[in-house]
Amino acid sequence: MHVVPAPKRPSSAATAKAAGAKSQARRAPSKAATPSLRPGPAPDRIRIEAPYPAVDGGRFPAKRCVGDTVDVSADIIRDGHDVLRACVRYKGPGDKRWREAPLTHIDAHVKGDRWAGSFAVDEMGDWTWTIQAWTDPFAAWREELERKIAFGEPDLSSELAEGALMLRDVAARAKAADRKVIEHALGILEDPAAPATAKYDAALGSELFVLVERHQERHECTTLEPYLILEVDRVRARFSTWYELFPRSWGGFAGVTEQIPKLAEMGFDVLYLPPVHPIGSKNRKGRNNAVTAGPEDPGSPWAIGHHAHGGHDALHPDLGSMEEFERMVAVAREHGIDVALDFAIQCSADHPWLAEHPEWFNHRPDGTLKYAENPPKKYQDIYNVNWNCEDWRGLWQALYDVLRFWVDRGVRVFRVDNPHTKPFAFWEWLIEEIRRDDPDVLFLAEAFTRRKVMQQLGKLGFNQSYTYFTWKNSRWELMEYVNELAHGPEREYFRPNFFANTPDILSAYLVDGGPAAFYVRHVLAATLSPTYGIYSGFEHYENVPREPGSEEYLDSEKYEVKQRALDGPMLPFIARVNQIRHEHPALQQLTNVQFLETENDALIAYAKRWGDDVLITVVNLDPQHAQEGVAVVPYELGLPPAFALEDLLSGERFDWRLGRNYVRLDPYHRVAHILRVAA
Amino acid sequence: MHVVPAPKRPSSAATAKAAGAKSQARRAPSKAATPSLRPGPAPDRIRIEAPYPAVDGGRFPAKRCVGDTVDVSADIIRDGHDVLRACVRYKGPGDKRWREAPLTHIDAHVKGDRWAGSFAVDEMGDWTWTIQAWTDPFAAWREELERKIAFGEPDLSSELAEGALMLRDVAARAKAADRKVIEHALGILEDPAAPATAKYDAALGSELFVLVERHQERHECTTLEPYLILEVDRVRARFSTWYELFPRSWGGFAGVTEQIPKLAEMGFDVLYLPPVHPIGSKNRKGRNNAVTAGPEDPGSPWAIGHHAHGGHDALHPDLGSMEEFERMVAVAREHGIDVALDFAIQCSADHPWLAEHPEWFNHRPDGTLKYAENPPKKYQDIYNVNWNCEDWRGLWQALYDVLRFWVDRGVRVFRVDNPHTKPFAFWEWLIEEIRRDDPDVLFLAEAFTRRKVMQQLGKLGFNQSYTYFTWKNSRWELMEYVNELAHGPEREYFRPNFFANTPDILSAYLVDGGPAAFYVRHVLAATLSPTYGIYSGFEHYENVPREPGSEEYLDSEKYEVKQRALDGPMLPFIARVNQIRHEHPALQQLTNVQFLETENDALIAYAKRWGDDVLITVVNLDPQHAQEGVAVVPYELGLPPAFALEDLLSGERFDWRLGRNYVRLDPYHRVAHILRVAA
Repeated sequence: MHVVPAPKRPSSAATAKAAGAKSQARRAPSKAATPSLRPGPAPDRIRIEAPYPAVDGGRFPAKRCVGDTVDVSADIIRDGHDVLRACVRYKGPGDKRWREAPLTHIDAHVKGDRWAGSFAVDEMGDWTWTIQAWTDPFAAWREELERKIAFGEPDLSSELAEGALMLRDVAARAKAADRKVIEHALGILEDPAAPATAKYDAALGSELFVLVERHQERHECTTLEPYLILEVDRVRARFSTWYELFPRSWGGFAGVTEQIPKLAEMGFDVLYLPPVHPIGSKNRKGRNNAVTAGPEDPGSPWAIGHHAHGGHDALHPDLGSMEEFERMVAVAREHGIDVALDFAIQCSADHPWLAEHPEWFNHRPDGTLKYAENPPKKYQDIYNVNWNCEDWRGLWQALYDVLRFWVDRGVRVFRVDNPHTKPFAFWEWLIEEIRRDDPDVLFLAEAFTRRKVMQQLGKLGFNQSYTYFTWKNSRWELMEYVNELAHGPEREYFRPNFFANTPDILSAYLVDGGPAAFYVRHVLAATLSPTYGIYSGFEHYENVPREPGSEEYLDSEKYEVKQRALDGPMLPFIARVNQIRHEHPALQQLTNVQFLETENDALIAYAKRWGDDVLITVVNLDPQHAQEGVAVVPYELGLPPAFALEDLLSGERFDWRLGRNYVRLDPYHRVAHILRVAA
Repeated sequence: MHVVPAPKRPSSAATAKAAGAKSQARRAPSKAATPSLRPGPAPDRIRIEAPYPAVDGGRFPAKRCVGDTVDVSADIIRDGHDVLRACVRYKGPGDKRWREAPLTHIDAHVKGDRWAGSFAVDEMGDWTWTIQAWTDPFAAWREELERKIAFGEPDLSSELAEGALMLRDVAARAKAADRKVIEHALGILEDPAAPATAKYDAALGSELFVLVERHQERHECTTLEPYLILEVDRVRARFSTWYELFPRSWGGFAGVTEQIPKLAEMGFDVLYLPPVHPIGSKNRKGRNNAVTAGPEDPGSPWAIGHHAHGGHDALHPDLGSMEEFERMVAVAREHGIDVALDFAIQCSADHPWLAEHPEWFNHRPDGTLKYAENPPKKYQDIYNVNWNCEDWRGLWQALYDVLRFWVDRGVRVFRVDNPHTKPFAFWEWLIEEIRRDDPDVLFLAEAFTRRKVMQQLGKLGFNQSYTYFTWKNSRWELMEYVNELAHGPEREYFRPNFFANTPDILSAYLVDGGPAAFYVRHVLAATLSPTYGIYSGFEHYENVPREPGSEEYLDSEKYEVKQRALDGPMLPFIARVNQIRHEHPALQQLTNVQFLETENDALIAYAKRWGDDVLITVVNLDPQHAQEGVAVVPYELGLPPAFALEDLLSGERFDWRLGRNYVRLDPYHRVAHILRVAA
């Protein structure tokens, strides 16, 4: 980061080694004994450390969205007691020149030497930023002069001469109008006839100070290197509302297109479709994941590829034509909805690639292709690619081409199936390549695995991720998990998408809790996280598992065609909550969540504040019984001692105070308050 | 850190910029659209992150001492579910080859994916280390085979053929004896006549497994880069006992030499001398820092340099000859004592450098040299160097030569005066240059300034630092500060030296508390920190300030010659505590300190454990009154429910239990217990 005249530590270790047994072989003292002073200017006096925001010291970009104000800070230190100045320098993706915003010295006595400022980002793409710091000799000189005058020093002519030298330098750099002011002061300073007090007044003039600060050279100017990158996404990366449906249950692309206006009206803005590609016929799975399919069984959409109909860049013939697909995407866009495709890197037993590129797949010693298995389970209908194959470049290229194909047809969101079983480096490359040209493309990671692997996927470029939310049901679990996501280091790069259910996850809480449980989980998902989603059927309280204890649905839509319509009894509630989310910026953020004490483990309460918008949500986590408790409003939330609240779900009004406020929620009446603090 | 086929983020930002307005100017899809796949093997599958110990991500070395066992750890992740293996690779300063020690997967379910191990360092200098990780396909295959056998899979011939392929590869790499075992197993696996169960037994044999693990190629082998550096110092860097004296008050070098056996007997191992160089005569300071000196006044040793007697590489003629100096250093070494010199980069008004190198100093506009000042204070006797001068290389070189001169005369420890007012880059270069040839040279930073500046000096190479200890007197302050030093990130690079007093710091606590206060502060310094020091006079309870509220001594030794002898009434106590420190390894460490609850803010208690050595220290912080309370021994200290203690100061024995134990300390009788847990 800094220019140091001596070799950097790692290389100097090699030098030390080359010097042999060291102290035994000590060299004679001589001028030649210190050869490491390189030519050039003296090394930087100022050190800039611990910049924020940075992920792993700058190895990965932090993430922000268009319209955000980016808070930045750093430790800035220099030896001695000189006056320091600093700024943040930043460039948007299209900028040729740096822009600057000032940094100010904060909490000097508490944490010491921290500087902070901010800048706004108004365009998608990679922004580059750094911090620059320098010394301000005029300010130091001015401050010292003031002290000397105050202490009654009799002769300050030498000091005034020093100041005049600096002013002459600044005047030469200033524009005409400013130069005139500086030269006027100089005239007084250098006038032998002027009284000392007149000279002091001229030297200490505040207008002069402002002009000098503006034009003075940046002495000892130091810039943080390497520069840092900030990934700026469109707002939907942070704030989005997902609805998942199997198009084959809705009349294909044409049928889905008809539903789009209604989905938009209900506040959804991402419509996620499981794979829309041809489904393998060889080894196809039957209903309820049966090993053999009946003649009418449609198979799982994730068994991608059919010998006759094509692979990842083809459409299932039953869903409609490419024209119908593109029309669906276009209509969705007109309604502010992104169609999200599933990107699942796996091939059915009769995917064209198996024949065209057998080298991309794993083989048995006898030369045959090797299907996926996890003993005793066998996935004879699925083949995984061999990432370690000789032609890995051809494979990566082909997968890039698949994404490029759909991007070129208007798709801007991909839900990536099991990214944690594919190489990190592949994703890092692929996402970068796609977003270099189309920074509006977003990737959601469907990864349920170890925490650090999920974090890595966020760091390397995924814009959103599935989470453990479906398995966090108690107050303690929810608070711990959401606090980690909202306030831990992950907040800089990991954006959670709280799906309340998925075709793969029917949680025990929904099975056991009945309709009230659906309302509880919906309110939690929609108000804790700015991005959440539901899979169709949720609004019908669908909760029959394949067998007791299973998270699979009975007669799962993954293996059969249903007849679906937007007529679930829960839809008005869902639409109302989505409307509240759209009207209240506080719910469009994650990092502003603050949990409140409830004095009852069955009640969870949290506040979100964004500017003047303050919402307090209280949820009864017990879907069977009424629960009483309190919501303790802390002083730190910045509310007045007493304030009025409106329940945005029921329209009721409440009067609350700082401190403890009584709450009772009966699941047979309502499971939650979403309370807006009245202005 | 990782080889990624796509350009790294910062440069790709430039590429994105070069691509222009991006989404508007989207390119046509084509094979040529993904040009960034470089030739070469597929990129690493494994990622190694957050290595420990590392300071600022590896920018600076962590510090350890000869004889230490270095605990290392890192996050190691890979996509998918393969079996991983990892080791730490390390090289001593003279090593040509890497050595290795295994890492094991720890807390997989708690924090996930952390691996840990250790290695011993047995030589001074810079050690290089890294972490290597790889996949173990044989272990994965073996585990899968076991599961398939358990589930009764009828035909495993394809699996056995896969295993045989791997074994053949390993056999080719193994030594003769091991190869024989592997080939025997292979013979059974490939024998058409052998029954399946015999084949399974051969494949799963534990001896075979051990041999394969030993010889198997490291698949997908990934090494953390850049390598990390560990600075390994001699033990005195961590554990040392300092005594400071002005040699002119002890009969010069010859007189000091006579005291050395007694100092060694009392347990001191660093003898620190304020500057021993000629003192300027021009503008010399008088007694009690008077602006003008009387004809007999010797001046401050920190006003270095005399027009006739020389500068930083000369000795004050009153102290003795160079031979006497070298004899003092040699006698000290025979007694296990380091003589520490003061390195103060400042020049008296008649230092030879002012005439020889006026370009190294600050000038007024009229061309005259500019003395140091901090209005309204003026230091007419002191000139600071101008670090920004044109000839900064000449200046750095001259300062290097000064240190080299004294190192060549046997000095191995330097106490550096006010390093925080000199450039960081200078120290980083200087310390590296000196220690490259003489890694036994130690530097103590006399920096009392903002925390991050003190930390920076530790990071860049200072082996020890002065601290805020003298101003931490309450239980709460001491616990907060010591916990930060012992358990915060500083523990890796910042070694505190707890001086109980210095010629510049007579603390209010000592002034107000009288003799008991001296015992309190001594026990705290000597048992909290493995390195501490006193300035002579401490053992006489000297505590008269120049004026009320001042931290300066009245008739300070800085400005006059005293008659000193090792006869202070506190010396037997000091010697006993030093003996305890030498006999108990638990007191030779900082990071093992653990504070205990006392239920009385005037009592502080802490345990230190190192192996079987367990000490509990209890100190009454109130030098005026007896105080009662408890010491709460926590379960985590690993002691039995009841245990015996011996007070190493008084010889008394106590019986304590886990939990609360009554304590009473009367400052008129004793201020502290230093309790050893009986074996």
